[in-house]
Amino acid sequence: MYDVNEIRKEFPILGRQVNNKPLVYLDNGASAQKPQVVIDAITQAYSQEYSNVHRGLHTLSNLATENYEAVRGKIQRFIGAKHADEILINSGTTEGINMVSYAWAAPRMQAGDEIILSVMEHHANIVPWHFLRERLGVVLKWVEPDETGHLDAQAVLNAITDKTKLIAITQMSNVLGSVVDVKTICTGAKAKGIAVLVDGSQSAVHMPVDVADIGADFFAITGHKLYGPTGSGAIYVKRERQEEMIPFIGGGDMIKEVTRDTVCYNGGVHKFEAGTPGIVQTIGFGAALDFITDLGIENIHAHENALRDYATERLGALNWLNVQGTTVDKGAIFSLTIEGHGHPHDISTVVDQRGIAVRAGHHCAQPLMQHLGVNATCRASFGLYNTMEEVDKLVDALTLCHELFA
Amino acid sequence: MYDVNEIRKEFPILGRQVNNKPLVYLDNGASAQKPQVVIDAITQAYSQEYSNVHRGLHTLSNLATENYEAVRGKIQRFIGAKHADEILINSGTTEGINMVSYAWAAPRMQAGDEIILSVMEHHANIVPWHFLRERLGVVLKWVEPDETGHLDAQAVLNAITDKTKLIAITQMSNVLGSVVDVKTICTGAKAKGIAVLVDGSQSAVHMPVDVADIGADFFAITGHKLYGPTGSGAIYVKRERQEEMIPFIGGGDMIKEVTRDTVCYNGGVHKFEAGTPGIVQTIGFGAALDFITDLGIENIHAHENALRDYATERLGALNWLNVQGTTVDKGAIFSLTIEGHGHPHDISTVVDQRGIAVRAGHHCAQPLMQHLGVNATCRASFGLYNTMEEVDKLVDALTLCHELFA
Repeated sequence: MYDVNEIRKEFPILGRQVNNKPLVYLDNGASAQKPQVVIDAITQAYSQEYSNVHRGLHTLSNLATENYEAVRGKIQRFIGAKHADEILINSGTTEGINMVSYAWAAPRMQAGDEIILSVMEHHANIVPWHFLRERLGVVLKWVEPDETGHLDAQAVLNAITDKTKLIAITQMSNVLGSVVDVKTICTGAKAKGIAVLVDGSQSAVHMPVDVADIGADFFAITGHKLYGPTGSGAIYVKRERQEEMIPFIGGGDMIKEVTRDTVCYNGGVHKFEAGTPGIVQTIGFGAALDFITDLGIENIHAHENALRDYATERLGALNWLNVQGTTVDKGAIFSLTIEGHGHPHDISTVVDQRGIAVRAGHHCAQPLMQHLGVNATCRASFGLYNTMEEVDKLVDALTLCHELFA
Repeated sequence: MYDVNEIRKEFPILGRQVNNKPLVYLDNGASAQKPQVVIDAITQAYSQEYSNVHRGLHTLSNLATENYEAVRGKIQRFIGAKHADEILINSGTTEGINMVSYAWAAPRMQAGDEIILSVMEHHANIVPWHFLRERLGVVLKWVEPDETGHLDAQAVLNAITDKTKLIAITQMSNVLGSVVDVKTICTGAKAKGIAVLVDGSQSAVHMPVDVADIGADFFAITGHKLYGPTGSGAIYVKRERQEEMIPFIGGGDMIKEVTRDTVCYNGGVHKFEAGTPGIVQTIGFGAALDFITDLGIENIHAHENALRDYATERLGALNWLNVQGTTVDKGAIFSLTIEGHGHPHDISTVVDQRGIAVRAGHHCAQPLMQHLGVNATCRASFGLYNTMEEVDKLVDALTLCHELFA
């Protein structure tokens, strides 16, 4: 039984007020709030079990290493990777995708090679490829969703040519909530020997994910969107792809031997995890994954689907409101504009007066904004702790905006 | 009045026992413990003031942005930078130096260009330059310290040729504690138009630092060694050098505009700070800097110098013990080997039985190990909360080792 009111009590910040109203946090697409168990895990780590990891032999170092390395297995199980050594721990999706660009793509691509992207990508899954366009002459090919925000997997596969080296695609749009059938894309791409990077920043938060079933070569997730600490995250990299990668960040732990004239790199995950890692935020990330697993990602998914359906119905009834993205198979993310009136920034400010946190802007997805023909939207993105009542409060606040700006 | 026993009470972990003995934490060179104010700042941020930063307009986002951005000024003041926009916030020194390698050095260097390093560098200040050797044919030139561990600034300047493009050098050896006169190096290098990167990971923890006075082009620090959270840090980059840099990590916040065919980068620090930053660990880092500043870095320096002098005296009296690095102007870092007997790993394990945390290994400084002719050392590195009694405990434990292994 998924009791959202009980679950809310686990998140201390949800007890606070904003502008003298109870906080209604609908900015989960940008970052999620943290349950007490995550905060406690951080406090425990720093108060009783802290040391640097891997290189020590003393008790605290062994303890911290054990706590830190245990998270690799938690991530592995959470996303369904076959092997723990396919999980590279990092600071989040931005670092993960940049690593793929520098360590895997750059050394094997040349001018004219093609990368296929959807126009729904987040800048984190665009700019690293623009680097390769600027620096190597790689060509970016774009696939568009239809007018509902649905992206046809076959259209992505149809964009493949004999120059295609990589498909880099989101599993869930951070603006529209659209879910992309990445399994079909991976299957089709694999048949042609093309690698697929899946941006799982949003999808892994809202729906069950199984990277082995999907067949992705790379799958990036972000801890702070998954109710974990900032600066935590991971990228799944299939073993065969790891073998193709050169090191990205140089420093401690990733080398076997360094002399003045030579350097010999470590094998396994450590080759790609240089320097002191985000020890405590990773331990906190592990606590967040435990929290999610205890609730059950299927239950979270069902709860959010109910929120999505209710919000779709209520927002859809407002004939002065544009909801960008109406495909049936979408997450509970709503990008809104008010026809003719009310800049998204103004809407955000007005609803904030009622304690409601929504985000206004381009959501780091400018090519999608250009495709939609808008400069910005106001985005309400739901999480595991949101309620039907909060949908009502959002609708009331938007109605107020409409009256104010009409 | 620097009352170390009062100060110790601020660090919860120092109240714990290890192997039924009070913890004696002498692994500060690897990472320092955290005062309660840092843990509290993290708890407060997640419990009451959390949101993603920069891109929001709602109350929590503004609050988090304000808290996060305030740290830039704290770092600026702590290391004496002239301008806040010379502080690039990151996850620590490894990321900082890699950024310089990728964003500044790689685009402007070619085969045969020279980088001068000392053999005392940490791998984080070696491997990124080995990348340029492997990938571009850059030549690494090494300068050695004398038998006391003292590195002559003039010897570094003497290594300059008309091929030299960069000097990358530590201000304090993480193995020997030797302090390098980086100001003289920067002054001499500047006269020849050569940039200097200073690795301040250790020095900024133990002594007052003024990057403007030093005249460094790049100065890297790490939060977790400065009593702050893991995954926090910064690099000072002089404005002129920032202008010479291409972007390193691509993603959110660092772009002004992205289309399918073009990308226009943001100006200022944001160009080099892609994606959701380490928001809360940076806020915690700010609390750590406040804590250090309240104590006074000069007072910490004086306290640690007293520890150094006492430890030098006591350790020096053990005629079966080798202390690597005996230069007068050094920090309280001691690398030890026991003549003929006792592998450093065994020493570490034995002293751990007495609750004493020291590190054994190559300390990510293999070229220095090769220079010293050892495979590993046992390192005791002191911090602001260590005491004379802890020096005594270390000496007793080492004496036990000597008896055991003799």
